[in-house]
Amino acid sequence: MPTPRHDRRELLRFALKLMDRARRTVLYYLASGYGVRVKSDRSFVTDADTAVEKVLRKAILERFPEHGIIGEEFPARNPSAEYQWIIDPIDGTLSFTRGIPLYGCILALHHRGKPLVGVIDHPGLGTRFHAALGLGCYADGKRVRLKDLPSAAQVENELIAAGDRSQFLRTGDSARFNRLTRSHPQVRIYADCFGHTLAVSGAVGAMVDFGVKIWDISATQLMIEEAGGRFEIVKRQKYPGGMNYGVIFGKPKVVAWLRRILK
Amino acid sequence: MPTPRHDRRELLRFALKLMDRARRTVLYYLASGYGVRVKSDRSFVTDADTAVEKVLRKAILERFPEHGIIGEEFPARNPSAEYQWIIDPIDGTLSFTRGIPLYGCILALHHRGKPLVGVIDHPGLGTRFHAALGLGCYADGKRVRLKDLPSAAQVENELIAAGDRSQFLRTGDSARFNRLTRSHPQVRIYADCFGHTLAVSGAVGAMVDFGVKIWDISATQLMIEEAGGRFEIVKRQKYPGGMNYGVIFGKPKVVAWLRRILK
Repeated sequence: MPTPRHDRRELLRFALKLMDRARRTVLYYLASGYGVRVKSDRSFVTDADTAVEKVLRKAILERFPEHGIIGEEFPARNPSAEYQWIIDPIDGTLSFTRGIPLYGCILALHHRGKPLVGVIDHPGLGTRFHAALGLGCYADGKRVRLKDLPSAAQVENELIAAGDRSQFLRTGDSARFNRLTRSHPQVRIYADCFGHTLAVSGAVGAMVDFGVKIWDISATQLMIEEAGGRFEIVKRQKYPGGMNYGVIFGKPKVVAWLRRILK
Repeated sequence: MPTPRHDRRELLRFALKLMDRARRTVLYYLASGYGVRVKSDRSFVTDADTAVEKVLRKAILERFPEHGIIGEEFPARNPSAEYQWIIDPIDGTLSFTRGIPLYGCILALHHRGKPLVGVIDHPGLGTRFHAALGLGCYADGKRVRLKDLPSAAQVENELIAAGDRSQFLRTGDSARFNRLTRSHPQVRIYADCFGHTLAVSGAVGAMVDFGVKIWDISATQLMIEEAGGRFEIVKRQKYPGGMNYGVIFGKPKVVAWLRRILK
């Protein structure tokens, strides 16, 4: 049974409250200091990442004990539940540790594999994007509607965002990266969820992101679709413990152009 | 005769007041809208750029009618004066027009060709960096001191910032760009003055920027040097109406490593 509109609104409200707590937790650790560890995949995790995920998990567990939780830093909980909360406590941890304010906290809710609610909060920028299924996409409380280009010929005037080249290298997609930068005059590297929210707001025409996980893309997919854009998964690759995705999202004509380039 | 400490302090105070006005002007245009034109070099200029430069020029002219002014958008004034104010009203105009908050306003003062005062303000981020000769470098009012790496071997753990690849292409330096991204695992593209202030704060180990003009680098040079870092011009190239520079700046050991790579 689909989730009624009233319940979607309630779930969104709950998610936004959680993200207030996520932002406060991040800013607390930023001000008071934190430990950093290197994970087995050579990425970073800090006390702030684990603290944010714990805060969110605890609040979800109290309110919806029957729901599942998938998070970047801890094992999945209730993996067979219909409702699954998906958490990336700090996306862009490396930026966070260096004092680059372009990281973000990501929270999404899936119902039977379909995104229902999505929030990306940028504590370092003081900005937030959110969406709920059928309820629209918002940037700092203002409705976002992506206007498509009048024609495909306009694509060259748009900025294209891409993740770090190292992400493409890691998944064997460096040829795709090179094709992209050779085919378009204005490819800019905006890694992590900062690039995602630039695509959601229409600041860039679209983003290309490879080697990303479910918690990197769930909120984005819903926001883009609620804003009237297109979100496409162009690559799925199994890795031990999950799936790596290659995705393109943004204004429909830009996404269509990129799909052809990256095929 | 060198400028006395008391006068440098006065000039800094004046520059900071000017930048308050620059920020207000930018935010006013951001909120109320503005026209955009494409310049002969295919870069963008907006009503906000010209308004900021006019505001700064008028205030400088009133207070220091004998000083010179060099700005991106209008012809130079008093080019033989000992004191020269150097203005980039909006560095990163393309970002500004797209709603990407990583642009900035830059103001510097030279005395006989040597930087005396430098300010970079990021209206979209609400952050500001400033320095004056012998008076230190500050980020949002907090003293900045760049700690050099204990050894050259640590360079690979630092982030390196670079300007857009298109800037390197424009000045015939794409081989340098490729060498850089092949030689270091963590090169990130942070174009315009956002990359500069990341280097000033030490968030990245150093930045490599090619195809930049005098108004892009004057404030940065002073900030880096006052923070204890190194600033090096590695390329000078005449163009009709001025000079293009290639620069490296940041923590001394990272700059030394980059100098070898980019030679």
